[in-house]
Amino acid sequence: MAKSIRIGMIGYKFMGKAHSNAYRTLPMFFPGTAKPVMKAICGRDPQGLETAAAQFGWESAETDWRKLVERDDIDLIDINAPSNAHKEIAIAAAKAGKHLFCEKPLALTLADSREMLAAAEEAGVTHMVGFNYRFAPAVLLAKKLVEEGRLGKIHHFRAWFLQDWIVDPNFPLVWRLDKEVAGSGSHGDLGAHLIDLAHFLVGDMEEVIGMSETFVKERPIADSMSGLSAKGSEDAPKGPVTVDDATLFLARFANGALGSFEATRFAPGHRCTNSFEINGSLGSVKFDFERMNELQVYFTSDDADVQGFRRVLATDGAHAYADAWWPAGHTIGYEHTFIHEMVELLDAMENDRQPSPNFHDGVKCQAVLEAVDKSIDDRRWVRIDEM
Amino acid sequence: MAKSIRIGMIGYKFMGKAHSNAYRTLPMFFPGTAKPVMKAICGRDPQGLETAAAQFGWESAETDWRKLVERDDIDLIDINAPSNAHKEIAIAAAKAGKHLFCEKPLALTLADSREMLAAAEEAGVTHMVGFNYRFAPAVLLAKKLVEEGRLGKIHHFRAWFLQDWIVDPNFPLVWRLDKEVAGSGSHGDLGAHLIDLAHFLVGDMEEVIGMSETFVKERPIADSMSGLSAKGSEDAPKGPVTVDDATLFLARFANGALGSFEATRFAPGHRCTNSFEINGSLGSVKFDFERMNELQVYFTSDDADVQGFRRVLATDGAHAYADAWWPAGHTIGYEHTFIHEMVELLDAMENDRQPSPNFHDGVKCQAVLEAVDKSIDDRRWVRIDEM
Amino acid sequence: MAKSIRIGMIGYKFMGKAHSNAYRTLPMFFPGTAKPVMKAICGRDPQGLETAAAQFGWESAETDWRKLVERDDIDLIDINAPSNAHKEIAIAAAKAGKHLFCEKPLALTLADSREMLAAAEEAGVTHMVGFNYRFAPAVLLAKKLVEEGRLGKIHHFRAWFLQDWIVDPNFPLVWRLDKEVAGSGSHGDLGAHLIDLAHFLVGDMEEVIGMSETFVKERPIADSMSGLSAKGSEDAPKGPVTVDDATLFLARFANGALGSFEATRFAPGHRCTNSFEINGSLGSVKFDFERMNELQVYFTSDDADVQGFRRVLATDGAHAYADAWWPAGHTIGYEHTFIHEMVELLDAMENDRQPSPNFHDGVKCQAVLEAVDKSIDDRRWVRIDEM
Amino acid sequence: MAKSIRIGMIGYKFMGKAHSNAYRTLPMFFPGTAKPVMKAICGRDPQGLETAAAQFGWESAETDWRKLVERDDIDLIDINAPSNAHKEIAIAAAKAGKHLFCEKPLALTLADSREMLAAAEEAGVTHMVGFNYRFAPAVLLAKKLVEEGRLGKIHHFRAWFLQDWIVDPNFPLVWRLDKEVAGSGSHGDLGAHLIDLAHFLVGDMEEVIGMSETFVKERPIADSMSGLSAKGSEDAPKGPVTVDDATLFLARFANGALGSFEATRFAPGHRCTNSFEINGSLGSVKFDFERMNELQVYFTSDDADVQGFRRVLATDGAHAYADAWWPAGHTIGYEHTFIHEMVELLDAMENDRQPSPNFHDGVKCQAVLEAVDKSIDDRRWVRIDEM
Repeated sequence: MAKSIRIGMIGYKFMGKAHSNAYRTLPMFFPGTAKPVMKAICGRDPQGLETAAAQFGWESAETDWRKLVERDDIDLIDINAPSNAHKEIAIAAAKAGKHLFCEKPLALTLADSREMLAAAEEAGVTHMVGFNYRFAPAVLLAKKLVEEGRLGKIHHFRAWFLQDWIVDPNFPLVWRLDKEVAGSGSHGDLGAHLIDLAHFLVGDMEEVIGMSETFVKERPIADSMSGLSAKGSEDAPKGPVTVDDATLFLARFANGALGSFEATRFAPGHRCTNSFEINGSLGSVKFDFERMNELQVYFTSDDADVQGFRRVLATDGAHAYADAWWPAGHTIGYEHTFIHEMVELLDAMENDRQPSPNFHDGVKCQAVLEAVDKSIDDRRWVRIDEM
Repeated sequence: MAKSIRIGMIGYKFMGKAHSNAYRTLPMFFPGTAKPVMKAICGRDPQGLETAAAQFGWESAETDWRKLVERDDIDLIDINAPSNAHKEIAIAAAKAGKHLFCEKPLALTLADSREMLAAAEEAGVTHMVGFNYRFAPAVLLAKKLVEEGRLGKIHHFRAWFLQDWIVDPNFPLVWRLDKEVAGSGSHGDLGAHLIDLAHFLVGDMEEVIGMSETFVKERPIADSMSGLSAKGSEDAPKGPVTVDDATLFLARFANGALGSFEATRFAPGHRCTNSFEINGSLGSVKFDFERMNELQVYFTSDDADVQGFRRVLATDGAHAYADAWWPAGHTIGYEHTFIHEMVELLDAMENDRQPSPNFHDGVKCQAVLEAVDKSIDDRRWVRIDEM
Repeated sequence: MAKSIRIGMIGYKFMGKAHSNAYRTLPMFFPGTAKPVMKAICGRDPQGLETAAAQFGWESAETDWRKLVERDDIDLIDINAPSNAHKEIAIAAAKAGKHLFCEKPLALTLADSREMLAAAEEAGVTHMVGFNYRFAPAVLLAKKLVEEGRLGKIHHFRAWFLQDWIVDPNFPLVWRLDKEVAGSGSHGDLGAHLIDLAHFLVGDMEEVIGMSETFVKERPIADSMSGLSAKGSEDAPKGPVTVDDATLFLARFANGALGSFEATRFAPGHRCTNSFEINGSLGSVKFDFERMNELQVYFTSDDADVQGFRRVLATDGAHAYADAWWPAGHTIGYEHTFIHEMVELLDAMENDRQPSPNFHDGVKCQAVLEAVDKSIDDRRWVRIDEM
Repeated sequence: MAKSIRIGMIGYKFMGKAHSNAYRTLPMFFPGTAKPVMKAICGRDPQGLETAAAQFGWESAETDWRKLVERDDIDLIDINAPSNAHKEIAIAAAKAGKHLFCEKPLALTLADSREMLAAAEEAGVTHMVGFNYRFAPAVLLAKKLVEEGRLGKIHHFRAWFLQDWIVDPNFPLVWRLDKEVAGSGSHGDLGAHLIDLAHFLVGDMEEVIGMSETFVKERPIADSMSGLSAKGSEDAPKGPVTVDDATLFLARFANGALGSFEATRFAPGHRCTNSFEINGSLGSVKFDFERMNELQVYFTSDDADVQGFRRVLATDGAHAYADAWWPAGHTIGYEHTFIHEMVELLDAMENDRQPSPNFHDGVKCQAVLEAVDKSIDDRRWVRIDEM
């Protein structure tokens, strides 16, 4: 029988909701996996916290994360607090012997993320970082095709994560636009996912050069925020936007492939276009998260008269995690990437192995993020191993 | 505070899983709705039942549905047993004063479905039928556009539900291919959904004429079945397929629109293409369930140089139910149609109104199904009011 | 060296322009084919005719088609006059020993079309009918896949030809809406193409049943018409629309396949959606003329993890006629279907064989058109061999 | 009445065919435009030339371009010889008072292209450069939307031109892979088109930084080449590939927009994906040449519940050049871009204005191409005004 893992989670907004739902749902669809026990949820606002605890189904609540990480009845700390709090919590939790799940980006700086990894390794605990997009079955199909050599030698990886939620200059100044809290803008928020997918699907990068812009430099201060929407008044006093609205970069991979990356929140019509394409010597794949159940796949070896991108619907038993869900053609959604992620986490803990992606991947991502930042500051190519 | 509704559910396979998931998940995302309490699950096989009860999270289990419908601690009976058991259960449950949710098709015959409706009305209970596709936000957008007159007068409704899971002649003879149990094949299974969408979106039909075929008339007898997949051996003894593989029909609506319907399990490449298009005097909409978050929308009033079908992603606050989920562009999946369906059910019960769709809709659908069957037998147009 | 064929063409509007362009362009791209010599163009309005002759590049002009068909310097009569004139011209031309190309529909009635075929056969001349959509390379790929058995046994053919040019009730009453001249509306204009594609791709039909509607029964009388656009005033006196706005029908093919057909001019957003899908036991194909360079192709035999419709771009040397044009990926357009059609015509004449499609195909199409009409009048299934 | 322009054309392969077809076809569909007279075609191989002259319809042929540019009966010299011959011919022709059309890239170097422009300006002749993709009606719609401010302030331009014709390492070493003749590889061939589209649609660039690669460094020497296909033997001796297989770069535009460009011949499944997207403050557009009749258009001002990219089919009278062709929905192809291009050329000559794009645009494109090359060599950002 599968064992139980007792969870303490810090943060209860967008990611907290996604994680809670994953823990609630997982035991029903993946009964063979270790069972997550929703022990305690932690946040600073007692009222919001209590509501969330009741609504999401947590057994208890803590307003002080330090107490949470000391509790004896917790095995795993799930950190989805704002990015600037990740480091301190993760290190304290590791020292307390807790296993760790941390949302991306792992930390605000590469140095911080390395400290976190070191702390986790020293403590000998499990550590995972929340690159959830890896867990879409269509993305896992891309991974499989690359790994099995069915795309041949990889020549190109191009990826863009396009959103449009702040294109209106009167959209208020929310925490995601504040460098102190968020670390960076589209680069760390969206670009981080692309970088992780590049690492996952193609491998390490050698050098990068980037370009960045903040199109709207001041915005009305926000009243409140929830997910990616916010309330505010156009007449509110304005404050400075301190993060990038868009960041692009070019990369050269260790295996010789060329990479192109773009992250922006200024692409009208794109709600959540997390998209990549891989071109290899034997074939290509294309993915767009807005149609996350699909992977476009092309093989050069197809008969000459029927060559074309195949729209593969990754919803049947031939695809990762799909057997747990519905019959072929019955699609899943965004939240399922978190459920699969937690399956990987719990399975790794049960089997005493590190999950993938773990803090090593978080550090690697951070190194590229910072190399890109440095390349922008210095206006030159920056090698990842400089970092 | 929202009240609680205590549920007893009969059936624990494909639909049982979908409903259970809906009841589990609903309170977290729709905290303002009456809370479903998963009291008891019912099935004939004690071992399978016990496993399902534990896995899905039901408080208790019953192997005799008669016991279940008599239990005092149950408010609502959710019937997702095989179609041939619907009638007896529903009528008994109504007599016991239980509220009713019944999967589609409501019954094997129009007469049976009418009896069920009569029993429910006589008992004065809530009754709902499981046409879950109505609850995709993109479908609800189509409904809204029609109702608000934004498509003008409706001229055309064309719909097809295409699957491919039995195109292999060695796919085994499962219960869905047995008329005794399933009532009909693609017609009642898939066509029923199209008919309900037509009623929902366009209105009543006046007359129909159909055509039907069983392409593979004998199949190896199945060992086991789960969802739409099955296990069996090609060498197994064969048995007759007693339902239709495909049924098509034409319809004339009361409002003058022309309808075209096709349901088949013999369309390779279509895993679950539940698709419709509406053409009105002012615009058109197109839907395909394999991309269920999207509705294609066209307006004749758009500026002449930018007319074209718009790909609307029904994932933000402008769309029904979407606010409860994730930020714009973060899609939902098949299972969410059931969650929304149960929100409608529980909300209706809490507010003492009949939900939509209810047994009236189930009866109406059954009337068309049978009119089509009659039109096939008699090789002539059949008026719905003949039935 | 390729021989020359001297052409006399009757009609100089939409089709006359398409044919003229084909004759002008063909020798450059198909230098191995017999060379069309544009001898004479014929029409009733001397001024319009003269302009057309000069603009299109015809050597001479005739205002009386009877003169044209008697001219010694003409080998082939190309008839694209209004449908009600086809029969008389074709029979006279055949009697004069001229080879024949006739636009579809071949005639206003089945009886007329049979007379035309008989006249052509008696005269021993070449005869072709203008079902140009057969000649899209993507359609020819569908044909090839069917013929080579790569789709297996055909179970389904569904086709729809959707346009929207008369959805505005103030669009004027043009000749295409006048039964005397046009014979029928969307049925003969659009449906005829679908029927021919069905014959070409699937084979003969056994029986049909249809439904038809004229949504807008009166329209302002038109001032002028060109192609599918027209000028008129909303205040003009109104006249009756005497043809169908939309016609749908179901069909059973001789080989057991089921067919569904819909032709309408009331589908907003569809400028020229001439679309079909074929489902066989081993695969499927989908075509949409608005993306005429593409065929969607699916094979059940693809590896389980990469099954999906392939978007084949039929623009390279693996595809019919494509070698004559541009490099792979450089698309062709509507007018190229006529060029390919004329290649078939001229090649057939040069090699003393009947082209395909010829008057036999025109008669077969007419038989189905009329069977559908009869099925609508009699409200019953009509066998094609009744006709 | 429209005047006549007498043309002498140098080169008769891929581009020579496209231009000839344009000159042949133009008078029929654009009778109001000056009439091109196909006076003389010029090439080095007498036999190939004679065949081309006859097949394409040129009145005479010359094997020495110096003779051609001196002929009194020629008004315009159309240069589509290999890129390394452009400069000498253009300057000689200008000196002889001939008007000039030159295929892109204008020359092998920026210096050369400036000399060509100077020569043309000194001679006071008309000059045009062959950026044909501007002339797709869907691209012209993008231009119109930008110019009319309907997309607002432009923030992003991303473009990629993806082909796959040399991904096979045994594809032979053709002239396009030889730096001496072609100047560059995908950068000058494909990237040049993207750069011109960027100039046309967004405006001037300020600085760029690029990256380039030759994935396959040696190939078997080719026997023959035609268009983008070639014949050769895998056993043939190998020679070095001296041009880039792929070039990517980032750009900052003068108006503050960020640009991303990628040109490659190593993208399996992409036959001719010449694609761009523009994101402005009020909307977005997307184009893919493989579906050249379509533009995807998004407006932030659309009603909240029906926002989405519109698939606009630029085939009706609301679109540039479309009235000359077929009814709405009847598409055009690659070759039509050249016909429209020649309409612009001839109209400009008739009306004594410079056409657009002209040699200024060719020079501007060359400056960016070279700035990118320099940025690759120097591994740094290069300002366009350095060049």
